[in-house]
Amino acid sequence: MGIWSLKYEGFNRNKERLREALCTLGNGYFATRGAAPESEASDTHYPGTYVAGCFNRLKSKVSGQIFENESMVNVPNWLPLTFRLKGGKWFDLAKIKLIDYRQELDLRKGVLTRFLRFKDKWGRRTRVIQRRFVHMENPHLAGLETKLKAENWSGCIDIKSGLDGRVTNSGVDRYRNLNNKHLESVQSSAEEEVIYLQVQTNQSHIRISEAARTRLFRSGELVEVKRHVADKSGFITQKFSVDLRHGEEVTIEKIVSLFTSKDTAISESGLEARNEVLRAESFERLLERHVLNWKHIWRSCRISLKGSARSQMILLLHVFHLLQTASPNSIDLDVGVPARGLHGEAYRGHYFWDELFVFPFFNIRFPDISRALLMYRYRRLSQARWEAKRAGFRGASYPWQSGSNGREETQKLHLNPRSGRWTPDYSHLQRHVNVAIAYSVWKYYQATGDLAFLSNFGAEIILEIVRYWVSKVKYNPTLDRFEITRVMGPDEYHDGYPDSKSPGLNNNSYTNLMVVWTLCRALDLLELLPEESRQVLKEKLNLKHEELEKWLDISRKMLIVFHDDGIISQFEGYERLKEFDWDKYLKKYGDIQRLDRILKAEGDSTNNYKLSKQADVLMLFYLLSAEELRQLFGRLSYHFEYDTIPKNIKYYLARTSHGSTLSRLVHSWILSRSHREKSWKLFKEALESDISDIQGGTTSEGIHLGAMAGTLDLIQRCYTGIETRDNILWLDPVLPKELRQLLLDICYRGHCLQIHISKNNLVIIAHKHGPPPIKIGYGKKVVEIGPGETVEFELL
Amino acid sequence: MGIWSLKYEGFNRNKERLREALCTLGNGYFATRGAAPESEASDTHYPGTYVAGCFNRLKSKVSGQIFENESMVNVPNWLPLTFRLKGGKWFDLAKIKLIDYRQELDLRKGVLTRFLRFKDKWGRRTRVIQRRFVHMENPHLAGLETKLKAENWSGCIDIKSGLDGRVTNSGVDRYRNLNNKHLESVQSSAEEEVIYLQVQTNQSHIRISEAARTRLFRSGELVEVKRHVADKSGFITQKFSVDLRHGEEVTIEKIVSLFTSKDTAISESGLEARNEVLRAESFERLLERHVLNWKHIWRSCRISLKGSARSQMILLLHVFHLLQTASPNSIDLDVGVPARGLHGEAYRGHYFWDELFVFPFFNIRFPDISRALLMYRYRRLSQARWEAKRAGFRGASYPWQSGSNGREETQKLHLNPRSGRWTPDYSHLQRHVNVAIAYSVWKYYQATGDLAFLSNFGAEIILEIVRYWVSKVKYNPTLDRFEITRVMGPDEYHDGYPDSKSPGLNNNSYTNLMVVWTLCRALDLLELLPEESRQVLKEKLNLKHEELEKWLDISRKMLIVFHDDGIISQFEGYERLKEFDWDKYLKKYGDIQRLDRILKAEGDSTNNYKLSKQADVLMLFYLLSAEELRQLFGRLSYHFEYDTIPKNIKYYLARTSHGSTLSRLVHSWILSRSHREKSWKLFKEALESDISDIQGGTTSEGIHLGAMAGTLDLIQRCYTGIETRDNILWLDPVLPKELRQLLLDICYRGHCLQIHISKNNLVIIAHKHGPPPIKIGYGKKVVEIGPGETVEFELL
Repeated sequence: MGIWSLKYEGFNRNKERLREALCTLGNGYFATRGAAPESEASDTHYPGTYVAGCFNRLKSKVSGQIFENESMVNVPNWLPLTFRLKGGKWFDLAKIKLIDYRQELDLRKGVLTRFLRFKDKWGRRTRVIQRRFVHMENPHLAGLETKLKAENWSGCIDIKSGLDGRVTNSGVDRYRNLNNKHLESVQSSAEEEVIYLQVQTNQSHIRISEAARTRLFRSGELVEVKRHVADKSGFITQKFSVDLRHGEEVTIEKIVSLFTSKDTAISESGLEARNEVLRAESFERLLERHVLNWKHIWRSCRISLKGSARSQMILLLHVFHLLQTASPNSIDLDVGVPARGLHGEAYRGHYFWDELFVFPFFNIRFPDISRALLMYRYRRLSQARWEAKRAGFRGASYPWQSGSNGREETQKLHLNPRSGRWTPDYSHLQRHVNVAIAYSVWKYYQATGDLAFLSNFGAEIILEIVRYWVSKVKYNPTLDRFEITRVMGPDEYHDGYPDSKSPGLNNNSYTNLMVVWTLCRALDLLELLPEESRQVLKEKLNLKHEELEKWLDISRKMLIVFHDDGIISQFEGYERLKEFDWDKYLKKYGDIQRLDRILKAEGDSTNNYKLSKQADVLMLFYLLSAEELRQLFGRLSYHFEYDTIPKNIKYYLARTSHGSTLSRLVHSWILSRSHREKSWKLFKEALESDISDIQGGTTSEGIHLGAMAGTLDLIQRCYTGIETRDNILWLDPVLPKELRQLLLDICYRGHCLQIHISKNNLVIIAHKHGPPPIKIGYGKKVVEIGPGETVEFELL
Repeated sequence: MGIWSLKYEGFNRNKERLREALCTLGNGYFATRGAAPESEASDTHYPGTYVAGCFNRLKSKVSGQIFENESMVNVPNWLPLTFRLKGGKWFDLAKIKLIDYRQELDLRKGVLTRFLRFKDKWGRRTRVIQRRFVHMENPHLAGLETKLKAENWSGCIDIKSGLDGRVTNSGVDRYRNLNNKHLESVQSSAEEEVIYLQVQTNQSHIRISEAARTRLFRSGELVEVKRHVADKSGFITQKFSVDLRHGEEVTIEKIVSLFTSKDTAISESGLEARNEVLRAESFERLLERHVLNWKHIWRSCRISLKGSARSQMILLLHVFHLLQTASPNSIDLDVGVPARGLHGEAYRGHYFWDELFVFPFFNIRFPDISRALLMYRYRRLSQARWEAKRAGFRGASYPWQSGSNGREETQKLHLNPRSGRWTPDYSHLQRHVNVAIAYSVWKYYQATGDLAFLSNFGAEIILEIVRYWVSKVKYNPTLDRFEITRVMGPDEYHDGYPDSKSPGLNNNSYTNLMVVWTLCRALDLLELLPEESRQVLKEKLNLKHEELEKWLDISRKMLIVFHDDGIISQFEGYERLKEFDWDKYLKKYGDIQRLDRILKAEGDSTNNYKLSKQADVLMLFYLLSAEELRQLFGRLSYHFEYDTIPKNIKYYLARTSHGSTLSRLVHSWILSRSHREKSWKLFKEALESDISDIQGGTTSEGIHLGAMAGTLDLIQRCYTGIETRDNILWLDPVLPKELRQLLLDICYRGHCLQIHISKNNLVIIAHKHGPPPIKIGYGKKVVEIGPGETVEFELL
């Protein structure tokens, strides 16, 4: 197995929630947090099962304030399966004497296995081996197989299998005071081997139906058992008994189906859940199909590096977890990528700008998934138009946090766990989500050449976002420059000026420059669209020549503020902030990743200092190449030398607390060419973000999808130096010295390319079937590659 | 206007239901049957509003038998808007004296206008002008504008606007005894200008929410009125009054929104309906956007012929009606094309094989719509697998009639309106739907070159259908041939042998030969797929070499039965049936289109005679070119000469009653080269099918979508002779002598081509932007055409 598995030895109560998140099994339709043992008590924390895109908006009352709280829904738990030995109590990990405990997540097969042995007070030793999967080919199915062996005893054993709809969303401690009960029971019933449960979300009225078929086998033979059903308010169980002889083993197979009323190709969700489970094959046969499907998926995800086995394993884990949230199964679902995937409840399943980090992986492996994620945004364009209008602007303004119908769902209050106080939260001012989305549209088009998408959907998104920005910029006649005021940049440590009562900052350089970039792309795309599409779009948006003239003007006169000789100011006035005493706080607090909470608890504020939670100015160097930056600054008539980049990196890196898992990633990327050792160190830290929970507790609330995707992208785009520009696929590989070799497969404009990079060589092999030849560039050489051909470059 | 409008003068109660169907307004999401005036009485027939794909399956009890009845849902009626003059009764067309009545459907703009003047018993003359649309750009909106003018009186007028959820599905008389109440009320409410109504379908629990905003204007100024709300069990109204002076006019604007719980990008359907209508602009402004959207759609639908203005108008009407059922708005909806579109309730909104006739229009104009329709089938592939398994076969077998979750929904009983008796219905034996779907997949690929679709979805459909057929064929060792038994062909007049008690026929030639064609395409596509995709598919379907060998064998040894020297037998044993006395029955009954009902009522059966309801053997000549037929028969080692075609046409045409609207179409097509006059006559009759309701009553139950699409296809493919073969776009135009010129735009593999055909010339102009050049062939000449280029052929 090696790199293909995540293994844990021994049961560790403290780390259980983290393991649950890391051992989550999913298929893009629903995901189940793994690892934790079952229990019947309703107040126990349950491993969650989340359905993609199933959101529920609620009003909650917190400390006198009413605000709306949208949450991803923890749907009925399908895992409950427990047992008791004659005379004993229902199995409870907390109360038994464990002899052995191991668990293993098989990444290649998408199977979680638990192995445990225990002894009860009568000395009876029992072995339990449990395997489970969430089916990748048939996304409505999941399976749980439990093998029980009486190692040194004979007697009766009771088995209980259930579906539990009483679950709450209580996976994040600090949300516990919010309304966390999102489900109401609709109906439940039982029929021979099968139990049913139907619930509905209480605001959006989405019905969720589950059916579970439980079967008992002895020596491979089905055993008929007498079943007793208990059905109490949303928790239905089926109990049966079996006699075990000394050394004998029985197998309990639980196959579960899940449908929601939003599914396609259904009549009624309850009926479908019933049909599906009645038609389902055996655990073993379903598992075979599941593994075969994973095999086919892994074929498209090859990313292999020689030199660091642990890094390789973590990268595979990241691919695995990405595919649990977005997969071929999610294409039809009208869903985006929540910040924590379907792994936990933090951020309530909202969509932020994180997709920016996720797209590069999918663009060149599963372009259909990227397209579906962008269509999710397109379907909410009219809501974004409404949000812009409501704020007094034109065009479309996507919210910083959104869910279900695409409306602004950013919280207005933030709970500081350090002080226990609720403080105003201005993060909805992160308008830069409206460059992230345009950027993703453009990059998707660059990678796929999907002109139909650009013509019918993508262009409209970009043009309407540009309109929003154009209506938001203000002309400063003194400077003859355009300004953007009252926003926040990616660095959430600054939401206003020290002396100001109103929130927001002026002329955030990241925002201003990316707006110029977006304006340029909008103008480009109007050139690029087929005549017919351009005409339709112009009429549809009533886009006139004068308006385009204005765009052109702004794209040449946006204000960018500098200080300290070539340092791009994070925002106007940044240079007047105080320097922060890093040593003092490091000494005092040890972990200072969340300085915002520390300072606020002290009555101080991060607004007063030159410090960042995560890359802000430096995001520019992450998203844009040096060449693009040179062109943009040149267009704006600002002085820019290549030296500006390392100068700025040095300046801001010294002032960053890495309070976001995205931060190390971005910094590793921008240092990859100038400071290879520092970059590799940051990359390794970024890799450990979730698996080692380096933020101390955030992973147990859900993995960081953007950061996971980012590490993959760092391998596939940064170390390869891949860039798509002028219809040429450019490569410029620089491997960290710790890596001997890098292999990966990518799709580029219909071609499947195998890329091999070693210290001295770059080899590209095109698959046998493909469209007409494309151009590939390295250094100053540009060559054509057609189907079945191989190109080799010696690395300089 | 001319060809762009459908006009009716005078109110005609008898023809009102037909006009309703023909004046239906829709947008691919929902459609509203037009024309009929409003009334409050709940037992009055209401013009229907249907939501695409919103099906409801119910058990019904009919004459002692219980069978399942699925119906498209007639959703709450949004049209109710009525008025009364002081002292009078609510407006009722039946009880007033009409002075003028006109209605006009503007095809270009998608607007229905009614103009009427009436006089009451006090001599008060009032003019009413009403316009309505179902919004093409924002599919959730519709608008109704009513202008009331007091021509010769002054006084108060009461106006009442409502949403009516008490509707039933009672649009088809003979279904009236079936359960026709599919909705239950969930809630209703009113708030200032707006009323709300939410209902849900009673089996599938789909919620449907409507909101209506009614405003009153005098001289363009909004008039504040006091509103009285009445809310009685699913019918909510808002009433208000206004004073009119002599000669004065007021305008009432009703804007309505409709959402279902299946919609994407929503939180909850009621909330969205409310938001949408509150945000909606004025009638005039919405209409502008609607018209602009239609303008853009018409751009892709150009089909223009010189020489027959009425034919041109009907063709535009057919395009218009196709786009009401399937449009860019339906792409996201997981819906297919019901046999009657969204125009009426006949066939209960089920999907048959009709899409076969619909695809050619969309393939070359809106390939995304074709793809969505095929995805509808793909999403139900697992159900089709289940249907095959249930019947004891392998692979996938799509039902003859299907809806919602894709299960078999063909009725088992048929009501003969002539005898009033329910008789067994064996039409589910029309297994040939399983060649129609494969054919459509293949033709879509041929037209678009969409290899991604073929690889990921289309190929799997074709291969699984082939597996079904292969498991169904039986080897006859005596003949060394394969046979297919117990099926029905397209001709529904034959469902069994005269002397047999069990239904079904053996070796229906259409089915047998099309199965061979499908086998050949399955083998072709395995060659054509990229290596990776082929490998994945073979593993997924466990497709081994031996199985393919068997396919090859069957494709060479399928039995085709002939009689009378070269006549392809409709089925084995056809030649032993009696000849039918056409003259006698024509004389006796006049209209003998539905001979099945006539003979059954007489105690006889169509099974006894050589007669057809519609093309069966002749469908072969419709779907396959002479060259393809020659290859297929050659492959099977049967004698085939080009002369076989006219011989068979003559034989079967003399034995056809044209009991299906598809029949004339197919016959017109196959005669287009050999008997141009007869062909033109049949084409003209096919054109009149719905607009003149030539089957006497079937159009009022919904237009015939396949026939409408077929007439367009006849123009675009038959008269142009377009064929896509060997990656060449072949043309072979033959215009009927009644046509001087034919112009149309088509999309072929990413190219937009303008085709001009006159008596002597064929000109093809490629749009400026497009992919690399393609090949176009005429006669023996094959030329390349690139973006912006023009190619001209002199016609021989």
